[in-house]
Parts: sequence; C-alpha cells; structure tokens
Amino acid sequence: MSERPAHGWQTVREEVLRRIAEKIWRPGDPIPNEADLAAELGCARATVNRALRSLSDDGLLDRRRKGGTRIARQPVGRATIEIPLIRTAIAERGARYGYRLIERQEAVAPGAVSAALGTAADAAFLHVVSLHLADEAPYALEDRWIVLGTVPEARDEGFEAISANEWLVRHLPFTRAESEFSAVPAAAARSGALDTAPGDALIVHRRRTWLGDKPITQVDMTFAPGHRIRTQQ
Amino acid sequence: MSERPAHGWQTVREEVLRRIAEKIWRPGDPIPNEADLAAELGCARATVNRALRSLSDDGLLDRRRKGGTRIARQPVGRATIEIPLIRTAIAERGARYGYRLIERQEAVAPGAVSAALGTAADAAFLHVVSLHLADEAPYALEDRWIVLGTVPEARDEGFEAISANEWLVRHLPFTRAESEFSAVPAAAARSGALDTAPGDALIVHRRRTWLGDKPITQVDMTFAPGHRIRTQQ
Repeated sequence: MSERPAHGWQTVREEVLRRIAEKIWRPGDPIPNEADLAAELGCARATVNRALRSLSDDGLLDRRRKGGTRIARQPVGRATIEIPLIRTAIAERGARYGYRLIERQEAVAPGAVSAALGTAADAAFLHVVSLHLADEAPYALEDRWIVLGTVPEARDEGFEAISANEWLVRHLPFTRAESEFSAVPAAAARSGALDTAPGDALIVHRRRTWLGDKPITQVDMTFAPGHRIRTQQ
Repeated sequence: MSERPAHGWQTVREEVLRRIAEKIWRPGDPIPNEADLAAELGCARATVNRALRSLSDDGLLDRRRKGGTRIARQPVGRATIEIPLIRTAIAERGARYGYRLIERQEAVAPGAVSAALGTAADAAFLHVVSLHLADEAPYALEDRWIVLGTVPEARDEGFEAISANEWLVRHLPFTRAESEFSAVPAAAARSGALDTAPGDALIVHRRRTWLGDKPITQVDMTFAPGHRIRTQQ
C-alpha cells in the first residue's frame, strides 16, 4: 500500500468529524456520495468508502441503499456493562479477594422470585447469602436463590470455600439473562454486613438467568457504598 | 425446504441445551464434530452447523479453528443498557411528558468535570439543570455541563422549551461515551426537586460524550426513588 497515513482513511474520517462538529453537516442531513467526496478530497473512492464504513460502524452515519448516506440522528444510545466474576473484578483492582458464607438453606422462595423466574410457587430453592471482600473490606453482598429443579447438584455444595457466583459460572452456562439496576437505602435488610452508615445509598444489581426454558437463579448483588458501575462505548 | 421443524436446527439446539443442563457436557468440555453429531442425531450436517452457530452466537459454545468446539466457560457476562431520550422513555411508559428548566448559566465547571472531559480548567461551560416529569410527577433531574468550545451555539438556546438532553441529540452526534451508574442518598444536593423523602436512595447515571477528540458534555441524570434500569441479554 503506497497510501500514506496523512492521506489515508483516518484523514477522511477526521474531515467528516470536523464538518459535523462545525455543523456544516447536521443530524439528518444527506452527505455527498463517495465518488463526489473522493473527487473533492483528492483521494481514492475506496479510501472514502473505508472512512464512511468506520463512521457508520460508530453509529454516526445512516447508510441506506436508497436515499444515500445521512448524518445519523441518535435517539438511542447504548452502554454495554461487563459483568465479571466478583472475584475477578476485585483481583483486577489489585485487591486481595476474600469470601465469607453467611447463610445457606433450602427454602421456598418469596412469591416475587418464583414468579419472575417462572417456577411453581412451592418449587425448591437453595438460598445462599455470602459476602465478597476486597482487602478485607466488604465489597458486595450476594443474596442468591438457586432453582434446585434445574441445578439439583447445588445440594451437594456447601458454598463455604467457593461462592455461588463462581460455582454457577463454572458449572452451568445460561442462554438468557435479565438485569435490573436500582438504588436502595443502607437501612434495607442485611446491608449491615456491608459496614454501612445509616445515610448510605447502595447500588443493587439484580440478575436472573435461564438455560433454554429452565430457570437457573436470581441474585441480588448489593455493592458497598461508593461503588460505581462503569461502561465505555 | 422439506425439512420439518421437528427435525430442524431448533431440535438440535434443544438437544445440546439438554446435554448441558444435565451436565453430560460441562463448561470447558469438547463436543463431537459436526459430522459425528449429524450421524448420531440422524440429520444433515448443515442442520447441526446452523444449531451450533446459533448456540455460539449466544455465547454458549467456543468454536475454534484448531481444537474444535467446546462448551464455553463464561467468566464475563454482558448487559446492554439502552439509553433513550428521557422524553421517549416517559412516552413509552404511556405517561405524559413534562419539562421544567431550573437553572441555566455560563460558568467554569468544577475541577473534576473539566479534568474528566479533558478541557482546560478555566474553559467556558453552560450549566443547565432541569427536571423531567411523567404525569406531573418528577421522573429525573438533569444536571448538565456543556462545553461551549465545542458547542458554542448552546449560548443561543434558552432551554426553556426543549431539554438539553433532546437539543444535544438533535444537534450533534458523538463518537465516544462513558457511563457510570451509582447510588446517592436523597440528602444529596438538589435532589429536593425529585420530591424525595429523607431516607430515599437514588440511582444516578453520569455520562460523558466526545465527538472525535472534542469533549461535548457531562450529565448527571438522577432518577426518582424506585427507578430501575432494565436490560435483557
């Protein structure tokens, strides 16, 4: 390739971004076709094509077979949250991981849990509550209901040395997951294990998973005060 | 196509899911190649291929050119959050949208804001605080800093009839966004506009956007008590 970077597709991309930033081209506006742009900018049509593809992949251009290419209107943004193992998340912060089992018992789940997962109201669950620690400080409280009809071998696991979070990931994949993020006052049940002060607010990640049509689990992961869930896009 | 659904790729997919659910195949295990599976299940190899592709798209299988196909280990889950216009989110709930401007002034931003966006410490910002309402009840408080160096024409907009959220989406796309989700006590500044009680916890979505290397804005969208951010996967 004899094309030098200074005249490459990145330069064309920058020029399109400049025109958008200076409102020469506004959301919804059509832009010239590739041949005209190539002639105007003095580069190969393939170079323009590569630049427009990159901008289109970023969601900045709408390219339609009929009607040509337009500057995208962006009614919906997206943020992708990665949900790592808690142990991995703590290790990635350079902290020492700790784990403590608080409660483990076979029980019938609250009606809201069995209804959301789609089990019978009297289905058998294993209820496992545990604490994840980073450098000895509470990091997240895991309050989990496991559907024993789907995962009967959870009965044989004490969850004293391994968290249900990690055991399930190792044990069984899922095909569908629902997540809900909300905020709760520290005064909410059990949050005492997180060493909270009365006025604290906590972020909760509730997650349900299924394998095919078989419900696996619902978990509330409640994070210690100050926790932030970050994404890039 | 003479293939009947009962013998189609969905049936093969269900059979693979059954073997995973019954731990015949566990995370990390290799599975038979397509030809062997097709022979075992009495169907065409293309049917097996289609089923395995679907399971791979769902993240349940790791398909490698060398080493064949394995049941995936799933160290990282993902949740994709859609970030609609607030007005659109309210309309989708079937509620009547309302908007009220609380404050609009040109100002220097707090150091944490300019540093995170990468502007000079004394860069000019427009600070716009407003309230979004659903059926007359507070829904979200928008506290936004707009970089006037990137968006100088925001000076000409009063934000009395249109929110900065909507004006920016109509006005300027972005190429990069960072999001942070956290929980704050209702006692935090300004949350009074959300009609909170003292013990409430609120979820905050902080978002920063850039167009190329030009910073556009930082916004804190603080939602009324009880708000949940939902995702499916």
